[in-house]
Amino acid sequence: MQAETAALPSAVAIAAQVRAGRLSAVALIEAHLARIAARDGELNTFTEVMAERALREAVAVDAMVAAGRDPGPLAGVPFGVKDNYDVAGRVTLAGSIINRDLPPATADAVLLRRLTAAGAVLLGTQNMDELAYGFTSENAHYGAVRNPLDQMRSAGGSSGGSAAGVAAGLVSFALGTDTNGSIRVPSSFCGLFGLKPTYGRLPRTGTFPFVHDIDHLGPFARNLTDLALVYDVLQGHDAGDLACADLPASPVGPGLGTPFSGSAAVLGGWFEELADAQGREAAALVAKVLGAAARVTLPGTARARAGGFVLTCASGGNLHAEKLKAAADEFDPATRDRLLAGLLIPANAVLQAQRVRTLYREEVLEVFRHHDLLIAPATPCSAPLLGQPTITVGGRELPARPNIGLLTQPLSFIGLPVVTVPVRNGPMPIGVQLVAPPWREDIAFSAAALLERAGIVTGPE
Amino acid sequence: MQAETAALPSAVAIAAQVRAGRLSAVALIEAHLARIAARDGELNTFTEVMAERALREAVAVDAMVAAGRDPGPLAGVPFGVKDNYDVAGRVTLAGSIINRDLPPATADAVLLRRLTAAGAVLLGTQNMDELAYGFTSENAHYGAVRNPLDQMRSAGGSSGGSAAGVAAGLVSFALGTDTNGSIRVPSSFCGLFGLKPTYGRLPRTGTFPFVHDIDHLGPFARNLTDLALVYDVLQGHDAGDLACADLPASPVGPGLGTPFSGSAAVLGGWFEELADAQGREAAALVAKVLGAAARVTLPGTARARAGGFVLTCASGGNLHAEKLKAAADEFDPATRDRLLAGLLIPANAVLQAQRVRTLYREEVLEVFRHHDLLIAPATPCSAPLLGQPTITVGGRELPARPNIGLLTQPLSFIGLPVVTVPVRNGPMPIGVQLVAPPWREDIAFSAAALLERAGIVTGPE
Repeated sequence: MQAETAALPSAVAIAAQVRAGRLSAVALIEAHLARIAARDGELNTFTEVMAERALREAVAVDAMVAAGRDPGPLAGVPFGVKDNYDVAGRVTLAGSIINRDLPPATADAVLLRRLTAAGAVLLGTQNMDELAYGFTSENAHYGAVRNPLDQMRSAGGSSGGSAAGVAAGLVSFALGTDTNGSIRVPSSFCGLFGLKPTYGRLPRTGTFPFVHDIDHLGPFARNLTDLALVYDVLQGHDAGDLACADLPASPVGPGLGTPFSGSAAVLGGWFEELADAQGREAAALVAKVLGAAARVTLPGTARARAGGFVLTCASGGNLHAEKLKAAADEFDPATRDRLLAGLLIPANAVLQAQRVRTLYREEVLEVFRHHDLLIAPATPCSAPLLGQPTITVGGRELPARPNIGLLTQPLSFIGLPVVTVPVRNGPMPIGVQLVAPPWREDIAFSAAALLERAGIVTGPE
Repeated sequence: MQAETAALPSAVAIAAQVRAGRLSAVALIEAHLARIAARDGELNTFTEVMAERALREAVAVDAMVAAGRDPGPLAGVPFGVKDNYDVAGRVTLAGSIINRDLPPATADAVLLRRLTAAGAVLLGTQNMDELAYGFTSENAHYGAVRNPLDQMRSAGGSSGGSAAGVAAGLVSFALGTDTNGSIRVPSSFCGLFGLKPTYGRLPRTGTFPFVHDIDHLGPFARNLTDLALVYDVLQGHDAGDLACADLPASPVGPGLGTPFSGSAAVLGGWFEELADAQGREAAALVAKVLGAAARVTLPGTARARAGGFVLTCASGGNLHAEKLKAAADEFDPATRDRLLAGLLIPANAVLQAQRVRTLYREEVLEVFRHHDLLIAPATPCSAPLLGQPTITVGGRELPARPNIGLLTQPLSFIGLPVVTVPVRNGPMPIGVQLVAPPWREDIAFSAAALLERAGIVTGPE
């Protein structure tokens, strides 16, 4: 697989060729559909392949080029979206069956519309943990996603199908969602670049929610320039998401911003103790290139992680309360019990979690008065085996599914922007989180660019 | 009492006289202390009179004037603060006894410091419902506040001591807090001007909390110019309150802003059906002067009120959880059972309440696209008798204590700024809420100025 994807051009290169009329979008999409037909039976990254729509859109792109018009910066680039994005005419299932009797979506999700308007071509919807509640993409209804780097292993979750599809070259990039790590974990396990932007940066209009005040959308890509290009196309306010900040777009640009020259620090304590040797080494490699001499500990992290856990569980229970009462059997067993538990949590715990969040945000903002970027491994280990019940974390054997997000969950809880970069310092890659202050995705991108140029972080190509 | 207060000069007039050296601050404070000694045994508005501090500060004001220095825009003006404001050297009791073993406050509350720096003189702390959880200021530990307009009646709550003290002329103005109506209800019952600013406008640093995300601070005054002058002195960011917006001060000024010429609308539905004939008439009188022809209903109001109720109860329970477990007997029986109930509420109800709040805010902001000001009675009736178990609301007899805030609670739930103005169209006055869009206190002030000039709303002078 590695050899096969090595030949794949970047999204930037594809769009340049298509726009110049040197590459037919239709031919490109047909090649990708063929690759999906050949590989996805094994990998199980798609929940639905939309060949007809894709070819129709590719024809339109080629026609625009033939007519001398510009189809946009992502002309002809094939991509996928997680199963919780609305696609017009399709019921948004979010990896579950509870929504199957709902009417089909009447429009594409806003981010999907923006990509299509930029010339990108949707190939289909991608597999995930049910209702985005998990870190392994082992789905009771739709089967497990397999990691293309080692098919016995998990691609991570909950946006596992999106990440695996990108890693396998079935799509050029993909959109996922991240509540507690669901973009950063699969990025780590599949060796990709992933962005979880600041909470409120990208509008969630037309996606199926999980935890309103922690849900984020974001892209996966095989290299940093692709990630930045897609991110730039996605930016902009939309009134349909009440939490979406009414800010002007803040494009990273093809040059990936001004070279990073800020003060970076490694996150110690929780983020070091709960990482394994590979993760710590990856963070150290990154720190060295970025000149990060300082080590910062955030004493509130254990509380913040517990807070994120409680708020997720209770909010999920709240969201699905009626369905849980009426038809609990329709939920994936791995999801159901946690949602039911969420319904039984006393208000006191949730209010305490919200209080903890406020205090943790202040604690981290204080650190950002002295540092521009924080560095931490993305996962406690590289990809575990599918079905593996436990992982070893800080010397203790813990249940795998709830604990894979230990290092991501505290950071999304307070909405910080994170670019996850892939380090290949073991049999399987592992991700490192580049954590920037709110609204400063540009800082994380400029640091990642330095790492990519130094050859420390590399995508599947 | 009416006759007695009629002689009282306004805060503006007092400050002008003191600054000009025509009135001794010491003499003024001594006269107020004498009035308190004579009247407060009956009225019970103070929890502690601070004669020594007041005289020391008055001496300092007079000394500044004698030295040719300006003591500030509130020079010598006597005021009080609700018992939940920190006063340096005093344990902040918030109308309870649960805090009695805590150390004394090491500094004054930020708003108190701003007033002192402007030359105002603190006379003491004022009685309230225990922990600000009530609308009648009948306190099991410190006794009931009596309404100076009719001592058999409630002054309203929870800032009842502050309002009654201003209405009785024991202080020139006072500071209260408003979570569900605790400034607006006593304003209504005592015939005062009261301001509950936008959530996040005035920093709460150094006050005892109740519901973090609904608590507001604000002033009471006998006339609108005094209210504006005090509000202007209070404005400005303080980092000690994480919810305080980092906005520049937006002074109303002595001219009370540009004359109101916007579009005003009367709130119908809930706000009309749950008001009595006097309240509806008062709102109609106000509407006529403001040229408010439109009537607007907000379908989400019943849900929003329920949401405010649930969130208050649960947040109060959360705040006092440890004490409730260890020493429930120390709470006022009227407060204790609601706090205990709050601890038992499932998280689902609180999350639903927060969801309802988001939607209600959107609903109201949509109305503000078409109107600049909304008009509603402040209370379902004028001041009930002390100990009166029920009030008649929309033809139904309901428990008095929880339902007095029916018309105020939905509006503070979403943090809107409200100036409450007193209409004297019955044996007891009743307040009308002038509700402005977020951060537009100036609009409510300019409308109130029109009403005051028209003689429709009048303070105790």
